[in-house]
Amino acid sequence: MTDTPAPSRPSPAVPECHIRKTGLLPEHITAFRREGVLAVRGLLTPAELEAAQEAAAGLIDDAWRTRSPHDTIWTLEPDDPDAAPVRIEYVMDKSPVLARLAGHPLLLGAMESLVGPNFIPTWDSMVFKTTAGAPRLAWHRDGQMYRDAVAVTGGGRVIDVGVYLDPAPEDNCVWAIPQSNYWDDERITETADRMNATEWDTTGAVPAVMEPGDALFHNILTLHGAPAVVGKQRRVVYYEYRPGEVERQLGPHTPEYVGLKQQVLRSCLEQRAAAEEHRGEEPFAYRPAEQYRLWDESPAISGLRFPHEEYWRW
Amino acid sequence: MTDTPAPSRPSPAVPECHIRKTGLLPEHITAFRREGVLAVRGLLTPAELEAAQEAAAGLIDDAWRTRSPHDTIWTLEPDDPDAAPVRIEYVMDKSPVLARLAGHPLLLGAMESLVGPNFIPTWDSMVFKTTAGAPRLAWHRDGQMYRDAVAVTGGGRVIDVGVYLDPAPEDNCVWAIPQSNYWDDERITETADRMNATEWDTTGAVPAVMEPGDALFHNILTLHGAPAVVGKQRRVVYYEYRPGEVERQLGPHTPEYVGLKQQVLRSCLEQRAAAEEHRGEEPFAYRPAEQYRLWDESPAISGLRFPHEEYWRW
Repeated sequence: MTDTPAPSRPSPAVPECHIRKTGLLPEHITAFRREGVLAVRGLLTPAELEAAQEAAAGLIDDAWRTRSPHDTIWTLEPDDPDAAPVRIEYVMDKSPVLARLAGHPLLLGAMESLVGPNFIPTWDSMVFKTTAGAPRLAWHRDGQMYRDAVAVTGGGRVIDVGVYLDPAPEDNCVWAIPQSNYWDDERITETADRMNATEWDTTGAVPAVMEPGDALFHNILTLHGAPAVVGKQRRVVYYEYRPGEVERQLGPHTPEYVGLKQQVLRSCLEQRAAAEEHRGEEPFAYRPAEQYRLWDESPAISGLRFPHEEYWRW
Repeated sequence: MTDTPAPSRPSPAVPECHIRKTGLLPEHITAFRREGVLAVRGLLTPAELEAAQEAAAGLIDDAWRTRSPHDTIWTLEPDDPDAAPVRIEYVMDKSPVLARLAGHPLLLGAMESLVGPNFIPTWDSMVFKTTAGAPRLAWHRDGQMYRDAVAVTGGGRVIDVGVYLDPAPEDNCVWAIPQSNYWDDERITETADRMNATEWDTTGAVPAVMEPGDALFHNILTLHGAPAVVGKQRRVVYYEYRPGEVERQLGPHTPEYVGLKQQVLRSCLEQRAAAEEHRGEEPFAYRPAEQYRLWDESPAISGLRFPHEEYWRW
């Protein structure tokens, strides 16, 4: 046999989609599924970006002011004078702007195409670096949740979306190893251990350079990391999505969780539809299969915070 | 909460894609994943259709002439005078035309978009009705292969493609129950048992009316059946596709099988590229992730027939 015409060595760069120019095309879907990562350029309008930046700044200011450990991860115990907050959980519940952002029609349309029609939101958080500095983020996979993780999610149906509110240049961005979403556990462990044995090794990885308003989609099985950085602010809002049928049957949350998070998604859509600034926008229509319309409208949910630990199945 | 703007009751018709006019769009991908079925109109050119019809007729004539049980399913024992052949296995190996058809760029592009970049061909066969008549095809799911079938394949990553060589009007076509690909085993069994208790019950089902040259994609978990028919010929070439990572990790075939069937696919592509009648066509470029380039080029395969029973893992 002759050589295959188009071998698929891992891509030397993160595949890109300029979503407002072309929409999410089948080739973007395939590239994401193959490479495990996709840069979506210009997801937010300038006005959306500005509103999200302001909301993010408010949440970070609250963390500094209250020094509360509630839903907030600190580098040290919060009462340590050198402690800095680095992550806030359940941001949709804490900020109406970030709830409305979670109803973004281009974002949700892409999730429907990639995750499938029964997608649900699972995690929502903000991860940020303050000018005080941030340590290296070790090479890791976000999830190892199923016994046959590669078979179930290797193809890209559990997705972490990072919406960037600040620039992430090459010396301060996430690096990812294309196609590592298909690696078995042994290769992942061996590679991560080797790369993490030095301060910053990027062998086989590509930088996900991002501009404010861009979003990085990554398969939760894709191996990724980030270098240490000092003196730079960088805020990223993360939303994670999973297929309702996978969550319902395999967990890790309880079956009840699927319907509750569908109510969260519906609430975000309603809040966005009711907002003056999104008037005239074509809203996303959430249309899971009938078997996966699992929300209970009565009683309506009273907030958007459903702590994971109250819904673990295993 | 108000009603969701676009509820998703199962579709009253099979969703359609006119593939030569629009390509396979993200909305077709989502519709297939939601409904579990998609009619792809006009996949074959008139010349491709004519060649496939001729090849199919030749295979059926061979069956009648030899009355061999080899790779052929008969309604009765083949030496019974009333016996009729109804299905022939491994048609790519038996007919160069059907091998080249399996290299069809529009078909394979669609499979890459739906199944993912590591897709492999699994089953290939021809199912046909002769004018002697064919009994009702009972309501069934093609596959129940994984412990959590809905989670693994409900979203449409294991696909049966039927390429129609004859018309399939409403009284002689496959009927499918949209969204039944998401039903759990209990609902499938209860529904199939109830519907199969009468000669022909189409409650909740839609007819997949097909013209020659069309292809019907169905999720192997979608519940489907067909009415009894007399006096009509209908030939359908079936190709099934699965994600290489699912087959490799979960089976049902052995891990070795994945690479062998990738060689089959590559051979089909090479045979098509070498054929005068497909000159000038943009060939499909098979580009699985590096981890799933599992074929061994030396020795090259000597045929396209890899009997399932020699490669079962369970």
